[in-house]
Amino acid sequence: MARVNENFLKLPGSYLFSTVGKKVREYQEANPDKKVIRLGIGDVTLPLPPAVISALHTATDEMAAKESFRGYAPDLGYEFLRSAIVENDFRCRGVDISIDEVFISDGAKSDSANIQEIFAENSKIAVCDPVYPVYVDSNVMAGRTGTYHAESGRWSNVIYMPCTDENDFVPGFPEQVPDIIYLCFPNNPTGAALTKDQLQKWVDYANQKNAVIIFDAAYEAYISQEDVPHSIYECDGAKTCAIELRSFSKNAGFTGTRLAYTVIPKELVLDGISLNGLWIRRHGTKFNGAPYIIQRAGEAVYSEEGKKQILEMVGYYRKNAKVIYEGLKAAGYTISGGVNSPYIWLKTPGGMGSWEFFDYLLERANVVGTPGAGFGPSGEGYFRLTAFGSYENTVEAIERIRRMGN
Amino acid sequence: MARVNENFLKLPGSYLFSTVGKKVREYQEANPDKKVIRLGIGDVTLPLPPAVISALHTATDEMAAKESFRGYAPDLGYEFLRSAIVENDFRCRGVDISIDEVFISDGAKSDSANIQEIFAENSKIAVCDPVYPVYVDSNVMAGRTGTYHAESGRWSNVIYMPCTDENDFVPGFPEQVPDIIYLCFPNNPTGAALTKDQLQKWVDYANQKNAVIIFDAAYEAYISQEDVPHSIYECDGAKTCAIELRSFSKNAGFTGTRLAYTVIPKELVLDGISLNGLWIRRHGTKFNGAPYIIQRAGEAVYSEEGKKQILEMVGYYRKNAKVIYEGLKAAGYTISGGVNSPYIWLKTPGGMGSWEFFDYLLERANVVGTPGAGFGPSGEGYFRLTAFGSYENTVEAIERIRRMGN
Repeated sequence: MARVNENFLKLPGSYLFSTVGKKVREYQEANPDKKVIRLGIGDVTLPLPPAVISALHTATDEMAAKESFRGYAPDLGYEFLRSAIVENDFRCRGVDISIDEVFISDGAKSDSANIQEIFAENSKIAVCDPVYPVYVDSNVMAGRTGTYHAESGRWSNVIYMPCTDENDFVPGFPEQVPDIIYLCFPNNPTGAALTKDQLQKWVDYANQKNAVIIFDAAYEAYISQEDVPHSIYECDGAKTCAIELRSFSKNAGFTGTRLAYTVIPKELVLDGISLNGLWIRRHGTKFNGAPYIIQRAGEAVYSEEGKKQILEMVGYYRKNAKVIYEGLKAAGYTISGGVNSPYIWLKTPGGMGSWEFFDYLLERANVVGTPGAGFGPSGEGYFRLTAFGSYENTVEAIERIRRMGN
Repeated sequence: MARVNENFLKLPGSYLFSTVGKKVREYQEANPDKKVIRLGIGDVTLPLPPAVISALHTATDEMAAKESFRGYAPDLGYEFLRSAIVENDFRCRGVDISIDEVFISDGAKSDSANIQEIFAENSKIAVCDPVYPVYVDSNVMAGRTGTYHAESGRWSNVIYMPCTDENDFVPGFPEQVPDIIYLCFPNNPTGAALTKDQLQKWVDYANQKNAVIIFDAAYEAYISQEDVPHSIYECDGAKTCAIELRSFSKNAGFTGTRLAYTVIPKELVLDGISLNGLWIRRHGTKFNGAPYIIQRAGEAVYSEEGKKQILEMVGYYRKNAKVIYEGLKAAGYTISGGVNSPYIWLKTPGGMGSWEFFDYLLERANVVGTPGAGFGPSGEGYFRLTAFGSYENTVEAIERIRRMGN
């Protein structure tokens, strides 16, 4: 008799952004005349850069002719894309990554959810709190997280590293030693960044404890400060303890185009077993490559034109981040993030709960953000706004929030 | 201290097609003057149909303008594609599937590997032998298959249903009752098809035993006989026991373009729990949608033009299948498949082993096929040829095999 994976049933409620979406839909239906501005979900709004569009057209034409048609892609991704990545994301920062340490995928969400599969079932994971929900939920599905306590909003077998204004949103080493440590910096949702010294300490800690760091660098394009590393491999010894996840979503606008990659150095070996080899096997069995035309689009991101165009695109969103940051600061809000990140993290005014402030903001200013509590218990009392809207909408949203009072 | 998922270490050797690829590369390097014809891997060779190319260009242009740009896709896929599927793959065959029972994905390989995640860890799976390796390997990684016996080539906790010439490649009900039954018909690798009566018996069996059938219909476009069902839902009661996997790879040439879908009817409920709901949660956590432009390409497959063009494309490969089937039959080989399938399954001559015949064929005729033993122990003594080459190469390959003698 077939039975279901009971771990799935432990997952409480629905996915954060579904709940947000539902609330907004209901509000909009009840108030069709209101112009709601969405600064909630981390989805981009600018069109794909011209270099990428041109590469998509060219690759599409290749697929139209027998001589240039491409069937199944190589498991790990096309060499043209992996070479461009190695050269532009690593070598030019003095980091030596070889192309067979780079795995092309259909998105950083998939990678960050799937990566846990290569680790032992009883691995103990540590996450920042608040945190991107996928890290925890994918481990729940795999049966690693113990039981959920609705009151605390925490799982019995997960190590939480609170990130609040008390520690400037930088996690401290946990009391209990984890096996796998998820770190996302620049951080989603807090927008905090780690300096190279701070990240180096985590690398040293992981090497010392034989733990593995899953380093999610999806937001590296937003780094503006010199002492913030773009890759964890800028730290000494990271190759023996860290996996890095990268995305084309936030730098090149690929949220609806789907492309990402994961780096697993060959030096990353546990008990004599290469994680790179395990991921080759996982990729080869449960995945069949990203589309050829999308991989060509990814390659175009690294062309001279492409690089200029994505800098402009990131600059546009950065300007929005500045508008939000400075506008809310002037309005008396306590804020962080936004400097090396497209996310601005604010303390809800007057001790309001995160969801309470969500409703308040939606009703009073018709602005949608994301309740901090949705990212974990330590996010309660915080709220996330994103810089991915249009400039005009961003300016208007902040103006409305200022008018609303604090 | 981090540790690896030891189930991965149980996987013997490397992936079948990697081994085939390696052998061919080595032969070609040693014999650079030989023209090797590949009828091995099930990869298509014809370019994408014009309707699909046109849709890709149009959708790419949409991504270039702010007004029509698309970010994150809906978790389950765009409604335009799911509506086209429901209408053209089901309703027009008298099968009523609703759009929220259809889940768009990046490929049937991913779906067939991931689907096991929603079932209990101790589920007992049954597979045909020979079988597409992904069904078994994904369950090995999940720790469901027990130990591997190199001598028998079998896992201790997997139920094997031999498909050989003795049962006309149609599996019989196993002695031990399985929880999950993988059925791929038209079959990969044997090319055998099930009539509606035969499939109905499996549906009745599954309903009676409370088992779930994972029905892989990736090759349905090649069905030519009237009494062979295109969907398992043409059978009575299938909605309470079957999940169906579909692909755009073999009918529309999407092997390098990546698009597929899975159907999970809402009536499919285990112990009061909807599998449709579990897959929504899985999709929403570990996947982030197929690319917008690729979903538009999928929609174009169902346009009037698209339907005509893919019929032509499938017709081209079918003609190849006929060339192989009739050519080898005339040469005295014992063959099956090829009628409702792009795969021709032949008995190796003179009692040769599958890999022995692989080497023999490569060296004597410079033709690449796939050793039946690579698909499971009951595939030993068989060999798979595919119809996905060019017509000219297919004709030449068969001529070479005929000349080679038997």
